[in-house]
Amino acid sequence: MLEELKKRVCSANLLLQKYGLVTFTWGNVSGIDRESGHIVIKPSGVEYETMKPEDMVVVNLRTGETVEGRYKPSSDTDTHLVLYREFSHIGGVVHTHSRWATTFAQSGQGIPPLGTTHADYFYGEIPCTRKMTANEIVGSYELETGKVIAETFRERSYDDIPAVLVHSHGPFAWGSDPENAVHNAVVLEEVACMAWQNLLRDSTQPDMQAELLDKHYLRKHGEHAYYGQSTPGGRKC
Amino acid sequence: MLEELKKRVCSANLLLQKYGLVTFTWGNVSGIDRESGHIVIKPSGVEYETMKPEDMVVVNLRTGETVEGRYKPSSDTDTHLVLYREFSHIGGVVHTHSRWATTFAQSGQGIPPLGTTHADYFYGEIPCTRKMTANEIVGSYELETGKVIAETFRERSYDDIPAVLVHSHGPFAWGSDPENAVHNAVVLEEVACMAWQNLLRDSTQPDMQAELLDKHYLRKHGEHAYYGQSTPGGRKC
Amino acid sequence: MLEELKKRVCSANLLLQKYGLVTFTWGNVSGIDRESGHIVIKPSGVEYETMKPEDMVVVNLRTGETVEGRYKPSSDTDTHLVLYREFSHIGGVVHTHSRWATTFAQSGQGIPPLGTTHADYFYGEIPCTRKMTANEIVGSYELETGKVIAETFRERSYDDIPAVLVHSHGPFAWGSDPENAVHNAVVLEEVACMAWQNLLRDSTQPDMQAELLDKHYLRKHGEHAYYGQSTPGGRKC
Amino acid sequence: MLEELKKRVCSANLLLQKYGLVTFTWGNVSGIDRESGHIVIKPSGVEYETMKPEDMVVVNLRTGETVEGRYKPSSDTDTHLVLYREFSHIGGVVHTHSRWATTFAQSGQGIPPLGTTHADYFYGEIPCTRKMTANEIVGSYELETGKVIAETFRERSYDDIPAVLVHSHGPFAWGSDPENAVHNAVVLEEVACMAWQNLLRDSTQPDMQAELLDKHYLRKHGEHAYYGQSTPGGRKC
Repeated sequence: MLEELKKRVCSANLLLQKYGLVTFTWGNVSGIDRESGHIVIKPSGVEYETMKPEDMVVVNLRTGETVEGRYKPSSDTDTHLVLYREFSHIGGVVHTHSRWATTFAQSGQGIPPLGTTHADYFYGEIPCTRKMTANEIVGSYELETGKVIAETFRERSYDDIPAVLVHSHGPFAWGSDPENAVHNAVVLEEVACMAWQNLLRDSTQPDMQAELLDKHYLRKHGEHAYYGQSTPGGRKC
Repeated sequence: MLEELKKRVCSANLLLQKYGLVTFTWGNVSGIDRESGHIVIKPSGVEYETMKPEDMVVVNLRTGETVEGRYKPSSDTDTHLVLYREFSHIGGVVHTHSRWATTFAQSGQGIPPLGTTHADYFYGEIPCTRKMTANEIVGSYELETGKVIAETFRERSYDDIPAVLVHSHGPFAWGSDPENAVHNAVVLEEVACMAWQNLLRDSTQPDMQAELLDKHYLRKHGEHAYYGQSTPGGRKC
Repeated sequence: MLEELKKRVCSANLLLQKYGLVTFTWGNVSGIDRESGHIVIKPSGVEYETMKPEDMVVVNLRTGETVEGRYKPSSDTDTHLVLYREFSHIGGVVHTHSRWATTFAQSGQGIPPLGTTHADYFYGEIPCTRKMTANEIVGSYELETGKVIAETFRERSYDDIPAVLVHSHGPFAWGSDPENAVHNAVVLEEVACMAWQNLLRDSTQPDMQAELLDKHYLRKHGEHAYYGQSTPGGRKC
Repeated sequence: MLEELKKRVCSANLLLQKYGLVTFTWGNVSGIDRESGHIVIKPSGVEYETMKPEDMVVVNLRTGETVEGRYKPSSDTDTHLVLYREFSHIGGVVHTHSRWATTFAQSGQGIPPLGTTHADYFYGEIPCTRKMTANEIVGSYELETGKVIAETFRERSYDDIPAVLVHSHGPFAWGSDPENAVHNAVVLEEVACMAWQNLLRDSTQPDMQAELLDKHYLRKHGEHAYYGQSTPGGRKC
């Protein structure tokens, strides 16, 4: 079932390697088929070198049960599931331990918008979650990770800021489909690297001008977007 | 029309990838045919992997109108146009979000001349523009970006300093032709990386000696240049 | 003798290059056959490009004497031997001068656990040894290096923290077999890089929450491990 | 003439690219035939991609005149010549603008010995020259560059410290032959990177213990060297 989505999720996982976002198997991408209510996700701990579409695991969105697949799904599956449930428009989710985004996550701070590279994709600070409580960690940890992300976006638009840093852990990114989620994870890493350098030199560096943030985000993603060859509305989740 | 220039502009765009200056499609190179009054520029948002010379877009220097091409020209086209109009000797323009030059741009500071690598190509500080006003941003933003660059060079020689940082945005570089503009963009990135490291360690590091700056710049670019196999005058815009 | 182990040790040495942990010949991997009481180790100063399984050297665990091989064993052999004698469960040892772990070693400080990437593999700080005494350095230096590592683990579990930094020198890592030792050396380097960045920005950054350290380490390595496709107990030494 | 040396110098120049020490043509390697009193050096400004042994230029050690070659020799030839004249045992010289060594040169500070990676090759601080005077810069600049390097080694052993940083410029390294000089330039770059990181975090970091410096340098290079497969005396200039 969902053979086409398996292919896309598998090759989106391989993109993580191509773009240097993963060491070993430290990353996972999933995609969703909203119609059937299933997600397709990378198996846990399987090498990228030998990964094939048929190794992908199909999981029921509502129950979290494995529907098809000879492997166990990624240990982060419960987090992906919460994101698909809470962020109703997204089509793909990515988790990595990419170097600079993870460094930010380890510092417990969000990534401030310091330039147009950030503004082209993220409409404001990429937030860092609060620390999880001992109970959340000891309990259904991966599920609670999803919930603390959802909590972080209660007053933010997941559509306008398609990534988050989980405190002391690492980044999750999402998008309109698996490829777009990876795309956002790549941008996140680049933006994190540059912002980290800026803050190393001046920890009080102010955010970019609000007008410039608006301009760049909206020329790509707003109603009147004019960037790229795409139709208005651009590259939204 | 301008088939030869399209080939050169296309392959100069691919050089951005070769030299690690771009993520995805975040860069664009253009070239000009001064005789016919046309520029050739990368289409907007097209992948480097599949880009071909015939995808390049021909734009009228004076009117900014697309003369030939099935794609929309780069969204930064208006900035390129201003630079060609204002800097009458240049033959190529490059814009990237390369990591270290963009980090400098995000800090709002120019790149001071700290060593001979810088002096071999840039005769003094590589300036950062002032912040753009809200009106400039909300208005004809890309055109105004070009104008704020031109303003920055009112008291500087675009010939001797073939690059600029746009505040909170990223670098533009130029040169005698598209390839030379890319060359300068590569140097800019390397020089930015090293200067950033120096300033991280000592934010008050003084500029290099004026005599040394003169010597290195002029042995490559002055009337009596003796570097390389080229004839005197060297690698100027 | 031990032809299979020679193949594995040889290819594990080549992994050091693949993962960017070595410049020239600055690294060595060994493996042990506990039954026969022999270790197999890289020859000293031989190029990775031309290294073959038959170039590996077989050394007696107890006496340190070369049993087979046309080359001299790695100059760090005595350190490896002490680790195999003291850490009775390990099956492979790696030494490199990888950039970030070595930078930490040069600072004389251990790598604090700042995030889950660390916690997935190392159950607490990766310690740095004390400085060696002049007598230890002038005497049987490589043997004493092993002893100071063993001393560092007197109150720590080599099983839970499969790596160490030797003061002013560089990292040693170990594991259940040569490949697993290299795996840990790769993780060590990545973890070192990120922690260094964090400490550059805030030298007083506190360790991660103990609960989170427990959770991540134990979901991969504890009795009730559930990460990957492997059976409980996971990737332990 | 000197066809064999031309091959070696040409391929040593290509090694600079392999090891990531050069951007464009920013580096040059030379070798010497002491018997005939000639050096062989890279031509000025020629691309590495197309460089062939027959492009190398033969220069008279004493007079500095080109003896053979259709290109102009590297613009740094006079510096190489001074080094060959002053450092009578060396067989190869390298100049690059490699990133971290150049960053140190731009800071005007030498690279302190902070760990055994340094000590394996350099027996103490890698010095930075004084600033050159205006007269030296305006005069026979490349020749004076060589002289200020020689001056820096008046109270140091060029044999024990086979590299230098030229103030506000970049590194020169040397060795027993062209390949060994490149080898030392690679080590220099790695050592510079790590020391820079250490000093970023603690600008007062003390040097490593003298005993450890002795041990590591002398186990590779002293009379009683025992590192590698080589005979005693090891990898000296």
